[in-house]
Amino acid sequence: MPKPGVFDFINKAKWDAWNALGSLPKETARQNYVDLVSSLTSSSESSTQVKPGADRGQQEYENLVVTSEDGITKIMFNRPTRKNAISTQMYQEIMLALKAASKDDSTITVVTGNGDYYCSGNDLANFTDIPPGGVEEKAKQSAIMLRDFVGTFIDFPKPLVAVVNGPAVGISVTILGLFDAVYASDRATFHTPFSHLGLSPEGCASYTFPKIMGPAKATEMLIFGKKLTAGEACAQGLVTEVFPDSTFQKEVWTRLKAYSKLPPNSMRISKQVIRNMEKEKLHAVNAEESSVLQERWLSDECINATMNFLSKKAKL
Amino acid sequence: MPKPGVFDFINKAKWDAWNALGSLPKETARQNYVDLVSSLTSSSESSTQVKPGADRGQQEYENLVVTSEDGITKIMFNRPTRKNAISTQMYQEIMLALKAASKDDSTITVVTGNGDYYCSGNDLANFTDIPPGGVEEKAKQSAIMLRDFVGTFIDFPKPLVAVVNGPAVGISVTILGLFDAVYASDRATFHTPFSHLGLSPEGCASYTFPKIMGPAKATEMLIFGKKLTAGEACAQGLVTEVFPDSTFQKEVWTRLKAYSKLPPNSMRISKQVIRNMEKEKLHAVNAEESSVLQERWLSDECINATMNFLSKKAKL
Amino acid sequence: MPKPGVFDFINKAKWDAWNALGSLPKETARQNYVDLVSSLTSSSESSTQVKPGADRGQQEYENLVVTSEDGITKIMFNRPTRKNAISTQMYQEIMLALKAASKDDSTITVVTGNGDYYCSGNDLANFTDIPPGGVEEKAKQSAIMLRDFVGTFIDFPKPLVAVVNGPAVGISVTILGLFDAVYASDRATFHTPFSHLGLSPEGCASYTFPKIMGPAKATEMLIFGKKLTAGEACAQGLVTEVFPDSTFQKEVWTRLKAYSKLPPNSMRISKQVIRNMEKEKLHAVNAEESSVLQERWLSDECINATMNFLSKKAKL
Repeated sequence: MPKPGVFDFINKAKWDAWNALGSLPKETARQNYVDLVSSLTSSSESSTQVKPGADRGQQEYENLVVTSEDGITKIMFNRPTRKNAISTQMYQEIMLALKAASKDDSTITVVTGNGDYYCSGNDLANFTDIPPGGVEEKAKQSAIMLRDFVGTFIDFPKPLVAVVNGPAVGISVTILGLFDAVYASDRATFHTPFSHLGLSPEGCASYTFPKIMGPAKATEMLIFGKKLTAGEACAQGLVTEVFPDSTFQKEVWTRLKAYSKLPPNSMRISKQVIRNMEKEKLHAVNAEESSVLQERWLSDECINATMNFLSKKAKL
Repeated sequence: MPKPGVFDFINKAKWDAWNALGSLPKETARQNYVDLVSSLTSSSESSTQVKPGADRGQQEYENLVVTSEDGITKIMFNRPTRKNAISTQMYQEIMLALKAASKDDSTITVVTGNGDYYCSGNDLANFTDIPPGGVEEKAKQSAIMLRDFVGTFIDFPKPLVAVVNGPAVGISVTILGLFDAVYASDRATFHTPFSHLGLSPEGCASYTFPKIMGPAKATEMLIFGKKLTAGEACAQGLVTEVFPDSTFQKEVWTRLKAYSKLPPNSMRISKQVIRNMEKEKLHAVNAEESSVLQERWLSDECINATMNFLSKKAKL
Repeated sequence: MPKPGVFDFINKAKWDAWNALGSLPKETARQNYVDLVSSLTSSSESSTQVKPGADRGQQEYENLVVTSEDGITKIMFNRPTRKNAISTQMYQEIMLALKAASKDDSTITVVTGNGDYYCSGNDLANFTDIPPGGVEEKAKQSAIMLRDFVGTFIDFPKPLVAVVNGPAVGISVTILGLFDAVYASDRATFHTPFSHLGLSPEGCASYTFPKIMGPAKATEMLIFGKKLTAGEACAQGLVTEVFPDSTFQKEVWTRLKAYSKLPPNSMRISKQVIRNMEKEKLHAVNAEESSVLQERWLSDECINATMNFLSKKAKL
């Protein structure tokens, strides 16, 4: 990106801001983000990344562990030291894993997280990796990737279940409206601090959340960044059922194994009947949200908020 | 239906399956179904069918008791020994009774059940009555009847109230989204085991249930067949209010009699304003659901599941 | 309005009824209405109208107090001796205040009530002020004003919050579906007795309420006039959160002041993304509801109910 002329004040400010961002050491930025997200919750247990073993077959993911048994394909976020924040590569891997799961012989697909977190959302360190085309190019690429990512969930043809093992932030929360069942540990929280970051909703939440919980509750979450407990998220219809953390995995997997024995075509066709009638609408919402975010990412509000976060100048 | 050629394996399997089904003694099939539905709940009280008296006027129903007083027309399912399962004839009678109620001088129409059950849903014995045109013809007829039946609820012009006196299953649950108020005894349960039967949702539930309770709860019910208690159904918006069984009838009818004294045109017009804006959508959903079911009824998953049920080879 | 011919019985009845209404002393009519609304709740505390001070700047409202600080513009209904019933002039003032708030430099706009009530809804005394064009003209004018009034809420561009300090009735309840957050004192109640008055829903409630709480609960409220407690309204998604009355103002304003510091463009744009996709639909619903009410106001059911109320011949 050529340095803007000296009279082009606004662009210069953005250019300076983004270059400052780009010049932040990537590991520092990431660690700051992890620290930030960490400070947003009281959780502080340590976690161990699962080593992908050779027995997982030919498909290799760096940030996921994908397994399939009992008719269930499980896609597990596996960056526990980063609180399962989604890096650019991880977005691609999730899309690949979902496409594979849509074609395998499982009946149900499950998304879950390894470690204390379910997922801390978009890895803000993604924004430190500015391409030669500059920040406008970065924003454009990010909007395309976001749209593809969310579109993969909209089009997923089998019952899709989230097993929310801990705190969920940002896009890992918004896309829950596209899942067919959401089981949560009572340790889970649901947080979408878009305004705090100068951003706006994605994942079709601008459409699904008001539909699920009414505008009075959806707006406090999506615009004012109110964090919900698992119980609140369940009362408001975002979560199917909450379980005590001590029995969470056992109870949920027992139930899922029973569901996975139901006639697979029947479940797939029922999902189609339920979802097809709003699929076109969801894709339109996704396109609009991604397009608005492409502009938000270049706004002073977003740049300042992101800088503040990454530089630890501010806390939520 | 002519026997298919020996090379036509798939059709042959269906033909065999359906003939096996058709050859099951009707009373045995029915009793098996009743036993099955009975086994799904813990209820085991006995019930007595109300004898239609000569004082009910000219309209005679074999499976309903229809009365009208205090501005309220009450349509009561009356096959208590069959847990109020809906036979083909009963579908027709319900449509007739609703059409009559829409034109009489009552202000509110109430649907309820006689005996321990509200309604155990579609009588699976209906599927043992294969017409000369064969199973394809049966599926086609059933889809047309289903569409007409649900359409009658969509178009019903007065406030329509369900008084759910006990367990409700299948289509008696799905059409609740088309009612204007649903009062439930705490003995009531709400169960839609479509996938267990190789089927898919009807009664516009694929549209109304996600709208009422959000997809996370609607899907567990419609795809995974989760049974709800009255309290759960109320928390999720399917039921207006739950009453203790001991005072259920008294409290509900006191309230309904008060409501029935409100200005009738006002109530009818308010319902129009509320419902008309989605009537077209509801009819489209009904058509799509019926069309999908027409195919599902001929699927191996459905035939096997129905056979298993009717032969008592399987339990839910 | 020329007196109708002697053979024009229906019009004559309306003409007589409305003239009787018009001849009721305005203060008597108002007081009766206040008494009526008062009798609908158990509240009986006295209230003092806030005197508009010279320090409020150039804009003068007779029935509102509008203040702006900490990034929040507060529009307070200020007819406490009339339980904040909305007179014709007050409708105009609210629209003016909202238009001013949409353009000022505040980030959040709050609507609340002075005194014991939030708002007792449309001042029925408005109907005693019949223009020379007669009752048809009055109904037409009222429908236009209603449509403009509700349209102002539909189009409001910033986060709009209701601080419901006490009982809310009629249109002050129905428009809550157009707010972005609704905080309620546990003294608040929510009551829409349209059928009791021979009327039908407005404020887009015929669309927003079924979407928020499902038809089973929305209809009991909108057609049967069921009054909700604050807790019930919160459980059903109409209210964001309920607070004990003793700490209500303190807790709510602390929260609002924190929210008002969030990036303003981000909040405005997020609201656009969430609301724009149904704005066209909401305007269509508003037009339909207003048009139906224009006819309802001329109906015998409405005239009789209003007369009864204003003459204290009947109680709810």
